Amino acid sequence: MSRRKLRVGMVGGGGPANFFGGPHRRAILIDNSAELTAGALRGKPEEAIASARELFFTRGYGDWKSLVAGEAALPESERIDYVTIVTPNDAHFGPADAAASAGFGVLCEKPLTTTLAEAKRLQATVQASKSPFVVAYTYTGFPMVMFARRLVLDGAIGEVRKVEAWYPQGWLASKLEADGQKQAAWRVDPAKAGASGCGGDIGTHAYEFVRFAAGRRATRIRARLKAFVPGRALDDDFTVLADLDNGGIATIAASQITIGAQNDNGFRVSGTSGTLEWSITDHTVLKHYSGGEPLRLYRLGAEYNYFPADIKPYIRVPSGHPEGFHEALANLHRTLEWTIRRSRGESCPTPFEHPGIEDGVAGMAFVEAAVASSKQDGAWMELI
Amino acid sequence: MSRRKLRVGMVGGGGPANFFGGPHRRAILIDNSAELTAGALRGKPEEAIASARELFFTRGYGDWKSLVAGEAALPESERIDYVTIVTPNDAHFGPADAAASAGFGVLCEKPLTTTLAEAKRLQATVQASKSPFVVAYTYTGFPMVMFARRLVLDGAIGEVRKVEAWYPQGWLASKLEADGQKQAAWRVDPAKAGASGCGGDIGTHAYEFVRFAAGRRATRIRARLKAFVPGRALDDDFTVLADLDNGGIATIAASQITIGAQNDNGFRVSGTSGTLEWSITDHTVLKHYSGGEPLRLYRLGAEYNYFPADIKPYIRVPSGHPEGFHEALANLHRTLEWTIRRSRGESCPTPFEHPGIEDGVAGMAFVEAAVASSKQDGAWMELI
Amino acid sequence: MSRRKLRVGMVGGGGPANFFGGPHRRAILIDNSAELTAGALRGKPEEAIASARELFFTRGYGDWKSLVAGEAALPESERIDYVTIVTPNDAHFGPADAAASAGFGVLCEKPLTTTLAEAKRLQATVQASKSPFVVAYTYTGFPMVMFARRLVLDGAIGEVRKVEAWYPQGWLASKLEADGQKQAAWRVDPAKAGASGCGGDIGTHAYEFVRFAAGRRATRIRARLKAFVPGRALDDDFTVLADLDNGGIATIAASQITIGAQNDNGFRVSGTSGTLEWSITDHTVLKHYSGGEPLRLYRLGAEYNYFPADIKPYIRVPSGHPEGFHEALANLHRTLEWTIRRSRGESCPTPFEHPGIEDGVAGMAFVEAAVASSKQDGAWMELI
Amino acid sequence: MSRRKLRVGMVGGGGPANFFGGPHRRAILIDNSAELTAGALRGKPEEAIASARELFFTRGYGDWKSLVAGEAALPESERIDYVTIVTPNDAHFGPADAAASAGFGVLCEKPLTTTLAEAKRLQATVQASKSPFVVAYTYTGFPMVMFARRLVLDGAIGEVRKVEAWYPQGWLASKLEADGQKQAAWRVDPAKAGASGCGGDIGTHAYEFVRFAAGRRATRIRARLKAFVPGRALDDDFTVLADLDNGGIATIAASQITIGAQNDNGFRVSGTSGTLEWSITDHTVLKHYSGGEPLRLYRLGAEYNYFPADIKPYIRVPSGHPEGFHEALANLHRTLEWTIRRSRGESCPTPFEHPGIEDGVAGMAFVEAAVASSKQDGAWMELI
Repeated sequence: MSRRKLRVGMVGGGGPANFFGGPHRRAILIDNSAELTAGALRGKPEEAIASARELFFTRGYGDWKSLVAGEAALPESERIDYVTIVTPNDAHFGPADAAASAGFGVLCEKPLTTTLAEAKRLQATVQASKSPFVVAYTYTGFPMVMFARRLVLDGAIGEVRKVEAWYPQGWLASKLEADGQKQAAWRVDPAKAGASGCGGDIGTHAYEFVRFAAGRRATRIRARLKAFVPGRALDDDFTVLADLDNGGIATIAASQITIGAQNDNGFRVSGTSGTLEWSITDHTVLKHYSGGEPLRLYRLGAEYNYFPADIKPYIRVPSGHPEGFHEALANLHRTLEWTIRRSRGESCPTPFEHPGIEDGVAGMAFVEAAVASSKQDGAWMELI
Repeated sequence: MSRRKLRVGMVGGGGPANFFGGPHRRAILIDNSAELTAGALRGKPEEAIASARELFFTRGYGDWKSLVAGEAALPESERIDYVTIVTPNDAHFGPADAAASAGFGVLCEKPLTTTLAEAKRLQATVQASKSPFVVAYTYTGFPMVMFARRLVLDGAIGEVRKVEAWYPQGWLASKLEADGQKQAAWRVDPAKAGASGCGGDIGTHAYEFVRFAAGRRATRIRARLKAFVPGRALDDDFTVLADLDNGGIATIAASQITIGAQNDNGFRVSGTSGTLEWSITDHTVLKHYSGGEPLRLYRLGAEYNYFPADIKPYIRVPSGHPEGFHEALANLHRTLEWTIRRSRGESCPTPFEHPGIEDGVAGMAFVEAAVASSKQDGAWMELI
Repeated sequence: MSRRKLRVGMVGGGGPANFFGGPHRRAILIDNSAELTAGALRGKPEEAIASARELFFTRGYGDWKSLVAGEAALPESERIDYVTIVTPNDAHFGPADAAASAGFGVLCEKPLTTTLAEAKRLQATVQASKSPFVVAYTYTGFPMVMFARRLVLDGAIGEVRKVEAWYPQGWLASKLEADGQKQAAWRVDPAKAGASGCGGDIGTHAYEFVRFAAGRRATRIRARLKAFVPGRALDDDFTVLADLDNGGIATIAASQITIGAQNDNGFRVSGTSGTLEWSITDHTVLKHYSGGEPLRLYRLGAEYNYFPADIKPYIRVPSGHPEGFHEALANLHRTLEWTIRRSRGESCPTPFEHPGIEDGVAGMAFVEAAVASSKQDGAWMELI
Repeated sequence: MSRRKLRVGMVGGGGPANFFGGPHRRAILIDNSAELTAGALRGKPEEAIASARELFFTRGYGDWKSLVAGEAALPESERIDYVTIVTPNDAHFGPADAAASAGFGVLCEKPLTTTLAEAKRLQATVQASKSPFVVAYTYTGFPMVMFARRLVLDGAIGEVRKVEAWYPQGWLASKLEADGQKQAAWRVDPAKAGASGCGGDIGTHAYEFVRFAAGRRATRIRARLKAFVPGRALDDDFTVLADLDNGGIATIAASQITIGAQNDNGFRVSGTSGTLEWSITDHTVLKHYSGGEPLRLYRLGAEYNYFPADIKPYIRVPSGHPEGFHEALANLHRTLEWTIRRSRGESCPTPFEHPGIEDGVAGMAFVEAAVASSKQDGAWMELI
């Protein structure tokens, strides 16, 4: 029997000011292997249903509860395979927990929740239900970041000594939220964003580079959180020093007030025998330094044999035809899709080890420790 | 009444070795505004029909003739809106001509045909039928290339003096066609590719930069075509010197034997008061030089107000989230889609002036003149 | 009467393994305005004298004491104008203090001394003698760094919020000192280098970017010093978080174990209305970001009118003829030379405000506070 | 017996508007191995003598004839070792021929002369006198260009197929000569510059990349010379297509009207098994592409063992301390110096094979053929 498209549900992402709904829909659709099936896309039920219709979802729901319940009530041959959650941070837990409980796969935006406690409850649910779960640390979907991980884990740079992860932005350098910019408004509101603004929004991405690309985790951290823009309740600048589980160290620096910086995340991992460096500003390249040898630039392209067999399926076109942000996001959906398909006995390439529930929890632990540290003028906080 | 998705047909692009079918399907699907409706995707009828089913087309056809006839026979509420043609060069004319005759829109790969005569016949058909027609000079879909065009036409660099357009690749530096590489095989076969290999395949893209970005056309050219790889029937290296219609000059250089070059097209347009430069290797940036002032780098991002109103709708995400090749290709589909929708009275943003049938014809005139010049050791050839 | 060349003395810099003697001699000679007059270039008197002869110094001395005494005893028309000190850190104070006491100008390598107390004693001497004094924070001699300073002080980016200064190197990633590499050996020896290895050697350069380019100073700092290479007595990795005098913050990161990093110092200064960024890896360019405008790249070149009048005299050639490290170092000598000449009534361009004795002292205060902080697991230390 | 500094004469380069006198003096002085001995630096005798005094030459002469005669009359222990010629093109032949005849070494600016006939006469003189002779194709002094040559000659990229050499500038995009700019004035005057403006001034540099870096020579060329600026007598844009002696091809493109281009020369050499690429805009790096392997970046630095033994002595400082234009020029003086010293039995590193008289002649043959070709609308011209 022939393969069918996966059926995808989406919670949030339908409002005119929403940023990430569009990218996720593009990521779902781009590979012609999944369809937009069920949507609960906006806050008000009637708007949610209208939005689903306008955006060509097969079924519209008034809210996530009815979406999860409604889909669960359908026969297996009709109901969705997984849910994508694109709401503000405070509205992740509800639908994620319900969807996982109902046995649906989940692709959830980050940070996972607004508190660590919530994150752990969600983790318990996911572990109990064994639902496939991916957290949208989108930058781990860039093939060069995946390759960096593989190289580090394969020992290409020896033992990791130091990880530098960065994520400067400039878009909140002035008080945008005062002008009614919705993307800004919820991100600086503790009720919606959680205890950290900059740290939760982008510091978590930078920390995930430590975990994903360098394969390490922080054992203790100290943090400096600042709100530079007068009257802002949450941090717009975020710096963390970390000790790592293998005796190494890390610096994690994120900012929303670096005027001119766009979305310039990246990392450098220095080991005992080499260094790997990647930046989204040149995202098709991975730099590999090793002592007195020429600097090697790995370049993106499906035809290059240096890519490991489990990364090649994540590259769509030959070298020189730049894939970018949407394809990276699509790669996370791809991992979830392949995980689901393989669980059903379909033959698929091996899914890459993209961030799951435990990375989402680790991100929340990181944010909470950073906030606590900063409140104590940068005291060390253990991370378990 | 609510807007529906456009229905798209595709000819070619279904075989396992086909390169461009995948990108076009991604480009069609990514924006959630069109669907894969009718496919005649491979040479053998039964394979074509199977491929359409596998790739989730609503209807499969055994060949392009039955596709055009079959769709034309359907009621307007069911039939396709446009056809995308992704076959080797020698199989462009047939379906393009038939589709345009039948009143369908057409998005056709380049070079338009294998001869200028064929191209002109197609042009006559298109002019008669008034069918919307876009030629897949994909690189004109990069927003920074569109912006370059706008700046040049608005006089930002004064009168154009010199255009340098380049397109080096390295993938045919060895005799790949001897190893049964299908992409290579048809491109070096005069029967399938036409009279020029490198010139037709990528030289035409470079020449289109002269037309599209610099807003000029060549009045006469001389060419040096070389086949470096022993035993190859068509050129794998292609250099053209041109005189332009305003007294300026151009150099158009393409190559398939530049080892290490990926797909590195770009251009520099020098005018009496400034210079614009773009390269796909840094495709989110447009460089603007003007005398003693600092070099200005325009950067891609929906939020930058320097983008003209008619380019902004072609940018999907905020700065720093790199869009790339698929989005550029999707922008050409977008122009065709909006042209079609507006012709039906739907409200859409203004379509950008992407390459149409006359650019396709101009490309063929360019290739034929280049081949003729090269055969006469580089004699000047007039271009009308 | 016609202008004469300045007469320069040099202490240290004559041994075969010495790194900085050569660059300083090139910097002194390159502009045809000074000559190598008196040298006490090596540790052993006879070697010192032989070295001075071989290197074409007019007069050789066995040690710095006899150099200072000998020159001071000469008539003004013969004796040196200033002394360049190129010894390891522990041998800066002696000759600097003596030379300044004797009324000679001094250009001293950094870090100024091995302890803050020593630095302050030297400062007292210099203030008493009013001797012109320049500290070789060489990177402040790059014209683009000078221009950054001018732009910040002129308000081009508003009020400074955050300074990031970096200086990664990789040359000490393995235990080079065990192989008898002399440059490595003294730098990791507390007796010769002082209390900090990486911090003293290159962290001070990074901190000087905060002072010189951003025009700010740290009021308190916390530091993380690490010795990654087993058996190394001094830090080879150095990270400092700082609070600045205007309420802003800074991060200063230096490392000697970042394999592949060459000498890649640089900085980014983010203000309330813009950002400036410079890196030695692209040292002829200064990036200026300001909100929604295109990124401006100022490029090096004597003919660009955007350079302030007091920086132009520090640029030797037209744009595109890259000046580099030697010219930057020569610019510090130039500042000292012009200061001396003007003190004698000669007409010269205005010397730029390159780092003087107070910057040297500030660097030592910075290093000592960093070492103290690190010993207390990163406790905050006030800087006065 | 101890080594002495070489004694250098200079003809031209003393006027306030002269560009290249300064760089050559810096190049001579920077390495502390040569001194400014005899100068005939300006057109008018009294100014020439005053200028020599001001610039600290040991002896001033009123013109080059008296310089050559005067020095030749001195005892060997006093007279100069070589002459540097920094006059406009029409004043190269006289002093070069005289100096070579008198047995002095010569370092002559390019283009060698104003006509090929003159160049050949000079060649005859040089061959007869066996005087060491270097032509100031300065860019061959960049160590990465030297390394490219070595790699090509050692077969690192197989057989050369194609050489692309470029040299865009923008400084003559407007009629600068009308404003009395002296550098511009003589360069656009056929009486002083020769038959080609852009081609002679910078096209010759680009062609020398073909010879020096790629190790090939043109056997026939066709050229397009344009004067874009109204009223200009000589070309300000220059494009040449060439056939090479091994069956390969080359494109040589130079321009003075590319606004914003500084001095951006470079080259790409494509061979049967790899490609090398260098540009002065990133001059410390040499790119080496070879098929499916990662791109290798060789980086400048005295400590890198990949540098051949005969290039290392031309690198002064460790990696990351950028050497640039002055050091490249100094490398040409260094080659001449070492050639002279070795001829006297002094021990020196092996001089690199920098351009000599035959390269100067080849450059003139190239320019004359280009001018002739352009006059015949681009007809092919043989180069012998």
